[in-house]
Amino acid sequence: MNITEAERDAVYKTIFSRRDVRREFKSDPIPQAVLERILLAAHHAPSVGFMQPWDFITIQSPITKSAIKKGFLQAHHESLEQFEGDRQNQYKRLKLEGIEEAPLGICVTCDRSRTGPVVLGRTTKPEMDLFSAVCAVQNLWLAARAENIGVGWVSIIHDNVVRNALKIPENIDIIAYLCVGYVDSFHSTPDLERAGWLPRRDVKSAIHHEYWQEPSFD
Amino acid sequence: MNITEAERDAVYKTIFSRRDVRREFKSDPIPQAVLERILLAAHHAPSVGFMQPWDFITIQSPITKSAIKKGFLQAHHESLEQFEGDRQNQYKRLKLEGIEEAPLGICVTCDRSRTGPVVLGRTTKPEMDLFSAVCAVQNLWLAARAENIGVGWVSIIHDNVVRNALKIPENIDIIAYLCVGYVDSFHSTPDLERAGWLPRRDVKSAIHHEYWQEPSFD
Repeated sequence: MNITEAERDAVYKTIFSRRDVRREFKSDPIPQAVLERILLAAHHAPSVGFMQPWDFITIQSPITKSAIKKGFLQAHHESLEQFEGDRQNQYKRLKLEGIEEAPLGICVTCDRSRTGPVVLGRTTKPEMDLFSAVCAVQNLWLAARAENIGVGWVSIIHDNVVRNALKIPENIDIIAYLCVGYVDSFHSTPDLERAGWLPRRDVKSAIHHEYWQEPSFD
Repeated sequence: MNITEAERDAVYKTIFSRRDVRREFKSDPIPQAVLERILLAAHHAPSVGFMQPWDFITIQSPITKSAIKKGFLQAHHESLEQFEGDRQNQYKRLKLEGIEEAPLGICVTCDRSRTGPVVLGRTTKPEMDLFSAVCAVQNLWLAARAENIGVGWVSIIHDNVVRNALKIPENIDIIAYLCVGYVDSFHSTPDLERAGWLPRRDVKSAIHHEYWQEPSFD
């Protein structure tokens, strides 16, 4: 199946305008048909040995969101201690999640025992199943952006808080807790770039030819 | 920036027609401008704390590809021992890589020490930087598909073989070795599904509402 230039440009537009959304969420619910399209896109991620180790838990309950938010606040407080001086003050001012504002939460998990102990392609690199589930997160994120829906990944929370709130068994790994919802608009740059936390790296410095080369700093 | 319905459909078309390519590679070189677009898309993946921990090494040298192929063959031979009976015979017959046929290899790495020891959003979940680099792989994969270019992820190879062949320092993690090239056509289903290795899971069984629920098998 051929992809036309116009279709290619739509993919690039989506990739470049995808953001990690933390505060522009609107309360409008996501229609069931839209949610199903997004999750089907996630389900079509690549997976090692075609094991499809992911599951998706959708969360609308305010009680569950409140438990997740509480877990975030605790982990955020612990993290704060790791920054010093001005950096700590800057960190304090950042809005890093929209757990309760977003109408929907989606937790993405990884069942490492799915399809049995020996998985084609995981025999040499055991983390490949976790990486497959991350590919599903990125498919979900881009599909959501293509639906003009914002997604924010909350990583400042202990896995056990998510596990308890969502009754996830011990043998299932937690990959991501995502806040999902329509937004007023998408910013043209990442929040952390605009806040002066870190700059966008020049892509040229990330590309090496034939083998690893240290940046020349010239 | 609004995404139109036609643009959204182009994104879904790309996601659903992306394949892990192992044998349909043509030798046509990838134009520099196309490669730059694909790598820029990868560079616009989400990253924890905006640390952008990835690097991309492009490989065209037949000598390097030959070293990678040799590493694959060794790991493939080791993996073979883990399968038994019919499954082992089936595994033997699968073509799992196109290292030497693909005109281009791309290695994606992760520098976990980039931007210092404390990374916003990694303080509670330390694997977030590796996951960011995987998001870059998935952006790259979809951008390539949108350019009608095939990508195959070679995970049956020891990291140290890739490290030695590409002179990657010890402190840099290896995420993926990708085979990249134009193809005659993309199959409509994954190779492993067509070969009867594993079936496509029903997406419904992957979706849980509000909390984890065991499949009902009804």
